[in-house]
Amino acid sequence: MQTDFTIPTNGPGLYEFTAQVAASLHGQTAGVLTLFVQHTSCSLVIQENADPEVQVDLHNYFARLVPPTTDPKMAYLTHTYEGPDDMPAHIKAALLPTHLSIPVRNGQLMLGTWQGIYLFEHRDRAHRRNVIGHLSS
Amino acid sequence: MQTDFTIPTNGPGLYEFTAQVAASLHGQTAGVLTLFVQHTSCSLVIQENADPEVQVDLHNYFARLVPPTTDPKMAYLTHTYEGPDDMPAHIKAALLPTHLSIPVRNGQLMLGTWQGIYLFEHRDRAHRRNVIGHLSS
Amino acid sequence: MQTDFTIPTNGPGLYEFTAQVAASLHGQTAGVLTLFVQHTSCSLVIQENADPEVQVDLHNYFARLVPPTTDPKMAYLTHTYEGPDDMPAHIKAALLPTHLSIPVRNGQLMLGTWQGIYLFEHRDRAHRRNVIGHLSS
Repeated sequence: MQTDFTIPTNGPGLYEFTAQVAASLHGQTAGVLTLFVQHTSCSLVIQENADPEVQVDLHNYFARLVPPTTDPKMAYLTHTYEGPDDMPAHIKAALLPTHLSIPVRNGQLMLGTWQGIYLFEHRDRAHRRNVIGHLSS
Repeated sequence: MQTDFTIPTNGPGLYEFTAQVAASLHGQTAGVLTLFVQHTSCSLVIQENADPEVQVDLHNYFARLVPPTTDPKMAYLTHTYEGPDDMPAHIKAALLPTHLSIPVRNGQLMLGTWQGIYLFEHRDRAHRRNVIGHLSS
Repeated sequence: MQTDFTIPTNGPGLYEFTAQVAASLHGQTAGVLTLFVQHTSCSLVIQENADPEVQVDLHNYFARLVPPTTDPKMAYLTHTYEGPDDMPAHIKAALLPTHLSIPVRNGQLMLGTWQGIYLFEHRDRAHRRNVIGHLSS
C-alpha cells in the first residue's frame, strides 16, 4: 500500500508531519512503513517532538556544519549557479536521511514517546516536497 | 515477525548486539530485517567488528564533531536544561541512523565479513535502549 | 527477490549504478527495494544526477570533514595501520548510508527527477564492492 504526502515548506528548518503519516495506516495492523523523499535538497529525520528549541538547534548546527557557498571556507565548491544555498543543501541531503523505515504494530507507528517525523528543508525558497510512503507486511 | 531488543548502555560509545539479532531470525530463510531504535539520543550503526580501536575512534570523532554545550563553540545552542550532553546527543542522532535494513538469505543476515551491528549511545548516564526488529518477506 | 550487484571502484568518489538497479526489477510492479552494501569503508547515497560538479563537490566536502590520519587534526585516531585513508573511510561509512530503501510503483523506481543511486567509495585503492538488493512487496 502506497500513500503520497505533499509537505509545503517556507525556508530552512524542520516541518513535522507525524499526524499525516499515522492517519495513512488505515488499520493495517503490522508491518514496516518506508518513507522516501523524492528530492536531493531536503531530508527526512526522526527527532524529539517535545521542546521546539531542539528543532531550532538542529537547524543552526547544520547551518554551521555546511555554510552557504558565500562563506570563504566553502570557496572550493564549484556547483554554485543555483544559489549559495543549493550545494550546501545537497551536502546536507547526503548527511541526513532520504528515507525512514518505521515498524507498525497493532495499527500504530512504533515511535518512541518523544519521536516525531520531520521533513528537514535545506533550501531558502518555499517548496512543495513529495514524500512516498510504502507499507510492507 | 517482530522482535524487541533491550540494549543496556553505560556511557557513550558503541555496543555490539549482532548475535542477538542473528538469533532472532528463527529460521526465516529470506527477507529484509529492519531495526528501529525508539530514542532520539542514540543511534544504530553498522561498523567494523574486527579491531576495537575502530569503535573508540568513531566515538572520539563524533565527540569532536559535536562537542558538549559547555564548549564555547556550541554557545549558540539553546536546548541545554537536560545537561551538556543532551542537545549534542540529538544532533548525533540526526547525523547517524535511527534504523537499519539488512537483507536475510538462507536464514543468515547478509552482513559483510567485517560488519557488526551496534547501538551507538550518545548520553553520559546509563540507559536501557529499546530496538524493534521487523522481518519482511 | 534478491539481486547481487558488483560495483568496481577506482579511488574515492561517487559511482552511479541507477541503470543496473532499474534493470533488476524484472517487471515486479509494486514494493520497496532495499539496497545494502557489505562493506564498512564505502557508502550508498541518492544524489543529484544532473550536474557532475555536485558529485565532485560532495567528495571534496567529505574529504575536508574527515581528513586522512596524516592530518595533524586527526592525530587522536588510533586505527592507522591500514593506511591514512582507512579510519576516515570508516567514519564516512558511519556518516553516510549503508542501505537505501526506494519505493517501486508500476514497475518503476520512484526516484525524483534528479535523483540517482551512487556507491560512494572512501578508499584510495581500487575495490570491487558488493551490494545486495531485496525487493519486498
